[in-house]
Amino acid sequence: MSKATLAVIAAVSAGAGAAATAAMYSLRGDGSNNNNKKKLESTAAPIAPSSTLAPRLTSSPVTVPVPASQVFDNSPSTPSNTPSNAPVDPSGLFQYGFPGPISDLATRQAFISCYDRRTRNPHWVAEHITPQSLAIRDGDRKNSNFLEDPLIPAKFQAKLKDYFRSGYDRGHQVPAADCKWSQSAMDETFYLTNMCPQVGDGFNRDYWAHFEDFCRRLTEKYPSVRIVTGPLYLPKRDDKDGKWYVKYEVIGNPPNVAVPTHFYKVIYAEEDGPEKKVALGAFVLPNAVIPNEKPLQDFEVPLEAVERATGLEFASKLPVQRRKRLCAETSCSIIVKEYAERQKAFAKKA
Amino acid sequence: MSKATLAVIAAVSAGAGAAATAAMYSLRGDGSNNNNKKKLESTAAPIAPSSTLAPRLTSSPVTVPVPASQVFDNSPSTPSNTPSNAPVDPSGLFQYGFPGPISDLATRQAFISCYDRRTRNPHWVAEHITPQSLAIRDGDRKNSNFLEDPLIPAKFQAKLKDYFRSGYDRGHQVPAADCKWSQSAMDETFYLTNMCPQVGDGFNRDYWAHFEDFCRRLTEKYPSVRIVTGPLYLPKRDDKDGKWYVKYEVIGNPPNVAVPTHFYKVIYAEEDGPEKKVALGAFVLPNAVIPNEKPLQDFEVPLEAVERATGLEFASKLPVQRRKRLCAETSCSIIVKEYAERQKAFAKKA
Repeated sequence: MSKATLAVIAAVSAGAGAAATAAMYSLRGDGSNNNNKKKLESTAAPIAPSSTLAPRLTSSPVTVPVPASQVFDNSPSTPSNTPSNAPVDPSGLFQYGFPGPISDLATRQAFISCYDRRTRNPHWVAEHITPQSLAIRDGDRKNSNFLEDPLIPAKFQAKLKDYFRSGYDRGHQVPAADCKWSQSAMDETFYLTNMCPQVGDGFNRDYWAHFEDFCRRLTEKYPSVRIVTGPLYLPKRDDKDGKWYVKYEVIGNPPNVAVPTHFYKVIYAEEDGPEKKVALGAFVLPNAVIPNEKPLQDFEVPLEAVERATGLEFASKLPVQRRKRLCAETSCSIIVKEYAERQKAFAKKA
Repeated sequence: MSKATLAVIAAVSAGAGAAATAAMYSLRGDGSNNNNKKKLESTAAPIAPSSTLAPRLTSSPVTVPVPASQVFDNSPSTPSNTPSNAPVDPSGLFQYGFPGPISDLATRQAFISCYDRRTRNPHWVAEHITPQSLAIRDGDRKNSNFLEDPLIPAKFQAKLKDYFRSGYDRGHQVPAADCKWSQSAMDETFYLTNMCPQVGDGFNRDYWAHFEDFCRRLTEKYPSVRIVTGPLYLPKRDDKDGKWYVKYEVIGNPPNVAVPTHFYKVIYAEEDGPEKKVALGAFVLPNAVIPNEKPLQDFEVPLEAVERATGLEFASKLPVQRRKRLCAETSCSIIVKEYAERQKAFAKKA
């Protein structure tokens, strides 16, 4: 399927009457066969620039090493025969400071976050959970408080007052419940740099919470689970003119924090054993009411869909031979339903 | 005006019947007095992360040095007393690659560009013009061709076919006409990494072109002029529900390249002399038809408005004492009109 284009419509409707948004994923073929959702393909795309040292925030003495450099292909792909006689010096701008963007990395005890100063949302947050970490229960969220992140310059911060009376939850991207192993680790999940505006009832407090629970229960099968979570701003086709538009609310007065249209999770379920296989799953859910009956697998998408929509890459160094498809290895389809029924059962008991 | 908020409505309407967007700038007070548009204030906000080595693309043998590092305040502002006994290792994610975002920097002969892989638009492009550079006229745009930028990974590229029949111009951010001093320097301005979708008639081919001409004519007064140009995605208030929404089209099939709602230019007109004064001007124009009669100064905004809207910083290392306000030093108001009249005069001559 060379140069073919594929539009995966996922999460078209989260349910009857739901304010769900049609998610459109741009999946250009670019010569490779990516029409097979079941086959997670290599995303080891060539990355051009020379080297990058990721900016880093250290907010706690637990210093988790951030990769200092990435290896890039530095060969000039458009060689020029021009003599070096430029009468101008564009880089002289940098005497006034480098414009950025700076994607503030914060290294917390239980997660790492990468912040988008334009949308005042994270680009992504990355966490790690294990059966052991979830077994420790020292933290309680009633001891935690939502916090503006002092590591972000004031003019780029998301503020508590932006969320106040916005109608949206301050939605944890790394769930507080994943960090019960330490009160202070849990406290750090309450920074607004770990937060996005999320629909509360029917999403953050329901389906999304069940989805987070699904992730935790993967530790029953896998000894180590990594999860990257973040917002999306996806285009939707306008029925009237047939064009695609991204539309999202911005909360705060003056408007400051973007309300994502969708959220993604990329899940890495790491197997034991010499082959170091990783069961990968990518999911995209609309920031909207989703009925609990909706199968989770309806929200599974090819990893590349998330990459194209975010501009990020999630597995560029994970060889295809080491990958498995999470939803082929474990049941992604009935977790929510089971959970809902168990909740009902608990409710009856109570 | 402590903690005051200020909403500057600029470019509310570019003209009668124009598809102009109301531009709203979030200007939170944060304790400082920023209600004075005429006073360009200090933007030397504290930047938190430790250090960053900007990613770099080298596309030509003219290597313009990109600043290798920035100095950050590395002091932990939220000290934690937690022992380093974390049962998890979130940074283990990076064994699979660092997610990014990578803001591809391309160092061209006449400019530097910084690319946004999510919107497939530049974050910014920075150029430098002088009376001498504009006096050389070796390049002609009829010899140049629009090019997809091979330095960007395929899945994040803006493509020629995305623009094809989109109804939008491939709008240069660094103008080709600023790079006539070399055909190959001009050719490089035709990379799509220097391009945004722009309304053609009435904007890119008219008012915006006059604005670019205004920038060039600054070299009659200033020996050195730097210009940073880029796209904006600004929220607009919905009359029905009173909420603020960002809405922009995405062109291509599947949709790939965002259509900015506005564009900014930050202009640094550098004076000669021992004090090294810099006349700064920041402008925001809607991506819409603008009548030539509209005064350019109507589009002048505080620098911080552009910074808040983009998440970038443009003068963090430029002391307030060295700053002047461009439109107080030179006439920004009648340039377009004069230009239009001169055009008419030329037309009569022809």
